[in-house]
Amino acid sequence: MSEARPPQSNNFDSWLDAYAERAHTLSVSEVRALFAVVSRPEVVSLAGGMPYVAALPKDLIAKAYESMMARKGDLAIQYGGGQGDAELREQLRDVMALEGIHASPDDVVVTTGSQHALDLVAGLFLDEGDVVLAEGPSYVGAIGIFRHYQAHIEHVYTDNEGISPEALQEAISKMKAQGRRIKFLYLVPNFANPSGVTLAAKRRPQIIEICKREHILVLEDNPYGLLYFDKPVPDALRSLDDNVIYLGSFSKILAPGFRVGYVLAPPALREKIVLAQESALLCPSSFSQMLISEYLNIADWRKQVDTFRGVYRERRDAALDALAEYLPNLQTTRPDGGFYLWVTLPEGIDSKAMLPLAVKELVAYTPGTAFFGDGTGHQHLRICYSFPTPENLNVGIKRLATVINRQTELLETFGKKAK
Amino acid sequence: MSEARPPQSNNFDSWLDAYAERAHTLSVSEVRALFAVVSRPEVVSLAGGMPYVAALPKDLIAKAYESMMARKGDLAIQYGGGQGDAELREQLRDVMALEGIHASPDDVVVTTGSQHALDLVAGLFLDEGDVVLAEGPSYVGAIGIFRHYQAHIEHVYTDNEGISPEALQEAISKMKAQGRRIKFLYLVPNFANPSGVTLAAKRRPQIIEICKREHILVLEDNPYGLLYFDKPVPDALRSLDDNVIYLGSFSKILAPGFRVGYVLAPPALREKIVLAQESALLCPSSFSQMLISEYLNIADWRKQVDTFRGVYRERRDAALDALAEYLPNLQTTRPDGGFYLWVTLPEGIDSKAMLPLAVKELVAYTPGTAFFGDGTGHQHLRICYSFPTPENLNVGIKRLATVINRQTELLETFGKKAK
Repeated sequence: MSEARPPQSNNFDSWLDAYAERAHTLSVSEVRALFAVVSRPEVVSLAGGMPYVAALPKDLIAKAYESMMARKGDLAIQYGGGQGDAELREQLRDVMALEGIHASPDDVVVTTGSQHALDLVAGLFLDEGDVVLAEGPSYVGAIGIFRHYQAHIEHVYTDNEGISPEALQEAISKMKAQGRRIKFLYLVPNFANPSGVTLAAKRRPQIIEICKREHILVLEDNPYGLLYFDKPVPDALRSLDDNVIYLGSFSKILAPGFRVGYVLAPPALREKIVLAQESALLCPSSFSQMLISEYLNIADWRKQVDTFRGVYRERRDAALDALAEYLPNLQTTRPDGGFYLWVTLPEGIDSKAMLPLAVKELVAYTPGTAFFGDGTGHQHLRICYSFPTPENLNVGIKRLATVINRQTELLETFGKKAK
Repeated sequence: MSEARPPQSNNFDSWLDAYAERAHTLSVSEVRALFAVVSRPEVVSLAGGMPYVAALPKDLIAKAYESMMARKGDLAIQYGGGQGDAELREQLRDVMALEGIHASPDDVVVTTGSQHALDLVAGLFLDEGDVVLAEGPSYVGAIGIFRHYQAHIEHVYTDNEGISPEALQEAISKMKAQGRRIKFLYLVPNFANPSGVTLAAKRRPQIIEICKREHILVLEDNPYGLLYFDKPVPDALRSLDDNVIYLGSFSKILAPGFRVGYVLAPPALREKIVLAQESALLCPSSFSQMLISEYLNIADWRKQVDTFRGVYRERRDAALDALAEYLPNLQTTRPDGGFYLWVTLPEGIDSKAMLPLAVKELVAYTPGTAFFGDGTGHQHLRICYSFPTPENLNVGIKRLATVINRQTELLETFGKKAK
């Protein structure tokens, strides 16, 4: 209540006094302006996060389109239910079974990309000051959502086998000692964004057990699990515990332009997600959902996923080869699937401060700071190898090496101030 | 902070103690269970709200699809920008110009239906306890959103010429006297959902002037404006004041299954909407946006809107004719466009209590209570005439008359207890 306060405004925004508290959690990314430059064709962008949709034969989409319109007609362009298309939810049973999940279509809600599923779930749980536990580093889009709901993000130490059960237990104890309320653990267990690491099979039941004991909900975000290069990932956390909220997506195994993701949740919660979805946007797109449903019906979609695996495996190899060639002493993760690898820079080099220099050298990446909610991550950067061709990955990483080596030299000559 | 509180759960929901405050604002509509019955083919549903998409030639969609894939290729299935497709935003200039709005495409944000635009804007402004002024009755989906953000909805007296400027001024004074903070006025000025009434031209500058003087943002929601039956609607409120936030949609002039709507907002606010949209779902569907953009390019879309006008005019006439025939003494609005008309029942009849009886008689409608945030509306009901054929409208309204007349007789025989 601030009726006594006179209306405030400035020349740029006459409604400055009227915004809700949560509006102030939104800020323009510091690297956003730079990324506008990145779309120039001469820049090799290792920043993206975009799937290589050129590897998807367009005639598969055309066939799915024609078959959908013939089979569904007006239903495909009409409003649909708030839970999502029943046929698609039935088909998702098979998709999830590939990672050991045996679930009822009744417990699935289709959403506008899995990002919106995450937003809806976060909105159902997070009050101001609540704690979300997350890997360190963690997905930038999830950090944005948790911040928007004014939650505190507590990163948990994560190594090459994923999030550490010991560190998780410690973080929980620390938060509890501070009298804070922990709402859930958010994690990307397979080929994580941005680290590329996968949660080891032996750690999975340990994570589940800790969270169960502590009454902490697990939010498993798994857009990349099917994009393994050599052998399938361990069974999903959801396969070990029906209380896990599981997020899936078609953005990486088909294409992101349809904005179709989904969430599998226990019945009481699933019902709340449907209501929140109906409030937010009435229903997800019937057109997108039915097109994907028809694609699953008529295309050999498993073979197409295998095609994608081959594309990304080749690019992972190209990236690692180039790193070995141009930056042999640099420490990086070695992903067994997915889109990303995580680079640790020599001490004293700041990835955020270095980015403008890299862009000047016609290469872009995402600074490590984007993946932490606590302002750390300066010594890291993310390379996304999914979109550039193997040749461009080589060119880009060669340019990156020029920048890093120049920074290293400066550092050796002038000491830490050079950053 | 409630660490001291032991974890609570029940047999149905083990996370009952973990929900955010806002989760408790979501409730299953009391009429939802009944509406499941309504999908049975023998029931004539006057409840819907669905456009008659069968009147859209599917070859127009097919041509737009083919042209889009040929022109845009991989871009159509890739991630897009958080503000929406630039070409579509440029085209929206022409669509909005039809209602007197001259705006820059830079100030438009494309959203997943205009419902999501409303959700994003509401999220930027509403803190708990803030006041939203709205027509009485008002759109049920907007009421749901405002409730979800824990706002107080203050209905303003609305007659056959739309919201009353005098009543608006009174409501503002009343809220201010209570020390409450008013965030915005939400209204559907053309062929309103659910009343079917249109805000008179002479009232438009009055509304704008009051809100300007009181520093209250105007949120103009206009999905139906182009669906006039005889003559175009008065120019949009946004044409009178650049500070108005204007919401538009393709759901009614094309088809809702694509989930494409848009919002036009002053620059500072538009930037916040983009950030909120990126947080919520990264970007709207490229596929849906580009398909609609291509439809606008290749189809005579104005002619198609005219086709829809003819369909809905015929149905409005069928509904009014049937009401005159079977319920000659009933008071209803007489919409000049759009989908809805608003019925005032004889005193003592409760539309919500009557609904099960109507469904038993194989006709459904939406009780008036759905359109008020304050529990009133029992004496009203909404008829949506957009989806049933003229013949079915006649059958449905005849059945409705049977139920209403039976209730009236009961009331006359036994007095008010009979309801």
